[in-house]
Amino acid sequence: MQRLAPGMEMAFSERITRLKSSLIREILAAAQRPEVMSFAGGLPAEAMLPAVDWAELPASMGQYGMSEGEPALREAIAAQARALGVPCEASQVLIVSGSQQTLDLASKLFIDSGTEVLVEAPTYLAALQSFQLFGAQCLAVAQKADGPDLAALRAMLEQHAPAFAYLIPTFQNPSAVRYSEAKREAVADLLDEYGVTLLEDEPYRELVFDQGSARPIVSRLKRASWIYTGTVSKTLLPGLRVGYLIASADLFPYLLRLKQSADLHTNRIGQWQALQWLGSDHYQAHLGQLREFYRVRRDAMQAALTEHFSDLATWELPQGGLFFWLTLKQPLDTRTLLNRALAEDVVFMPGEPFFVEPDANPGYLRLNFSHVAAERMDEGLRRLAQVIRDAGALEAA
Amino acid sequence: MQRLAPGMEMAFSERITRLKSSLIREILAAAQRPEVMSFAGGLPAEAMLPAVDWAELPASMGQYGMSEGEPALREAIAAQARALGVPCEASQVLIVSGSQQTLDLASKLFIDSGTEVLVEAPTYLAALQSFQLFGAQCLAVAQKADGPDLAALRAMLEQHAPAFAYLIPTFQNPSAVRYSEAKREAVADLLDEYGVTLLEDEPYRELVFDQGSARPIVSRLKRASWIYTGTVSKTLLPGLRVGYLIASADLFPYLLRLKQSADLHTNRIGQWQALQWLGSDHYQAHLGQLREFYRVRRDAMQAALTEHFSDLATWELPQGGLFFWLTLKQPLDTRTLLNRALAEDVVFMPGEPFFVEPDANPGYLRLNFSHVAAERMDEGLRRLAQVIRDAGALEAA
Repeated sequence: MQRLAPGMEMAFSERITRLKSSLIREILAAAQRPEVMSFAGGLPAEAMLPAVDWAELPASMGQYGMSEGEPALREAIAAQARALGVPCEASQVLIVSGSQQTLDLASKLFIDSGTEVLVEAPTYLAALQSFQLFGAQCLAVAQKADGPDLAALRAMLEQHAPAFAYLIPTFQNPSAVRYSEAKREAVADLLDEYGVTLLEDEPYRELVFDQGSARPIVSRLKRASWIYTGTVSKTLLPGLRVGYLIASADLFPYLLRLKQSADLHTNRIGQWQALQWLGSDHYQAHLGQLREFYRVRRDAMQAALTEHFSDLATWELPQGGLFFWLTLKQPLDTRTLLNRALAEDVVFMPGEPFFVEPDANPGYLRLNFSHVAAERMDEGLRRLAQVIRDAGALEAA
Repeated sequence: MQRLAPGMEMAFSERITRLKSSLIREILAAAQRPEVMSFAGGLPAEAMLPAVDWAELPASMGQYGMSEGEPALREAIAAQARALGVPCEASQVLIVSGSQQTLDLASKLFIDSGTEVLVEAPTYLAALQSFQLFGAQCLAVAQKADGPDLAALRAMLEQHAPAFAYLIPTFQNPSAVRYSEAKREAVADLLDEYGVTLLEDEPYRELVFDQGSARPIVSRLKRASWIYTGTVSKTLLPGLRVGYLIASADLFPYLLRLKQSADLHTNRIGQWQALQWLGSDHYQAHLGQLREFYRVRRDAMQAALTEHFSDLATWELPQGGLFFWLTLKQPLDTRTLLNRALAEDVVFMPGEPFFVEPDANPGYLRLNFSHVAAERMDEGLRRLAQVIRDAGALEAA
């Protein structure tokens, strides 16, 4: 049953052979020097963390709470989801310790060694790591500008029986893709047709820079089971570690027991604070400011990219979220650029780790536009472009 | 790879066939009526939750944090552990979302389907559930009044190769046993001799009602790897969901990555609050009040038990922790008493679920003394004794 880890006498579980470090966290650790301009992370801008008031926190929030979460918060989240078209009751809402925990709970619910899971190519790095830790065989469907390649998706569903499909349809991390209405409808139909459970991850829905909007895919399902997950980390305070999942009634009891076993319940202090915001006028006002602030930074990055990257890469202007996704015209393994960029006090996120097969997908970069001040973006991207240009010349030589 | 859950069309992971509901949480849910006297849970007394101040919370605590936890809190916990004799640095401390999460992380690190894990009989219910969810084959060693039966422990280690031993040597939940100095030393020697990793769980160390004290077992190990876990839930505020683990250097990097994958990091609001208390004079003062308060309730329960249970059961006076552990003179399945007790507005925790083989271990009850007010204990225990007496008469008839 047990394997020895390399160089170790210790008998670890078999899954530990698949345990990867988080590349993004290693990059962030290397980029602690204040002079480093980081386009790597997905952190909210410090300046936009709202001032919060703790004076009214009830003493009772210090006691143990329910594994499901605070009743009033579950009601508020259900109401918000219903307003988006997701048919649900508060009894289907589970408060989790950040939406990363939803990935852990879903992995436990569905994944044995060899279980097939359908994902987008590219997809969220930390989801891939969680699914693979539990032994998933991840099946990747290529992403186009308006959502997945439908022919590829249908072909995959005909040949495989994934335990669930993991999709991020609204301002995807890393690609910034927002599925079109038509793609959302078609994906829902396909999942219903093949009876495949959907795990829909929506951390970025509220960070939208235009008027467009589109209902969650889970709201379009007629038969398939589903989990919808969100968080207050991108719009309020990530340090609270408060996220949620909403699940179809057949899945909820299992997820609740897995939550109990994982950490009993989510911290109540953060839950109470989140409840002071959700559904309120001051939250709406804060979201408005946040969108305006990030739109300015996005536009600054677009201008700088146009200036420095037009000969090097192609990209779409993101309509929401926190990232630009660049496709290099001359593909190279962008992981090899990290140390050279760091020497120029610039860091970015290589694209390879967002793919099930990293080595087969060179030549992408994820650039975060929320963290670096608008006035420093031009300089940072000028340096990064030069690093890429030099590496290309080196390869050509 | 996948099994259908009973009555379900859904393909869940194999581990879900072993997913149990938490009996204790179901009992607590059934006992929501205010007139119910609950001896079931392990909740701190509401009256002893300290008033906490949030006015100085830095805004920066709202941002994402490190997976390891807040550096200053890690330092404070390492210092506290060193004062207990545990040789460690802050770099070996991982802040977790309550010490329940340590059980989840250790399960992930060590347990495949069939992995052997050594536990006490009885042992902590939620640990058993977590280990078994991941597929552990739990090996139980009988507990005596001063710690495990050493001959049984040695025999077990000779015949098996458990991935780790899970022990709660200080005011064990549920048995209230505190290992003697001699037993601690002997257990450490055995684990060293057989090279078995120790997971030592210490939520109750500070809730001590006499002058006795004994160093953690991990501080006595010479070769074996170890994880030591604690929490502020029993001494400060469980609603913060802040616990910690300290691990030998060979295990730490794996536990850190598993933490990242589980929920990125523990909420920073609670970490900051915990740091305001640990190592301070006002924390020492609070602990003194807590011990005095619980000692009064323990003594009230001892008096009530002597009055109503002397003919029904035997027990030891707990020197710390939150529980009495009763052994019925006429064993019966105490789970069958729950509904009858609830009809009398009394709930308790049956002993069976604390054993690897519940059906083979009838006739134990766990009674919490921290929750019910001292003046109601006599009435509550009188009713419970009558329920047991009636059930015994029914069986005899």
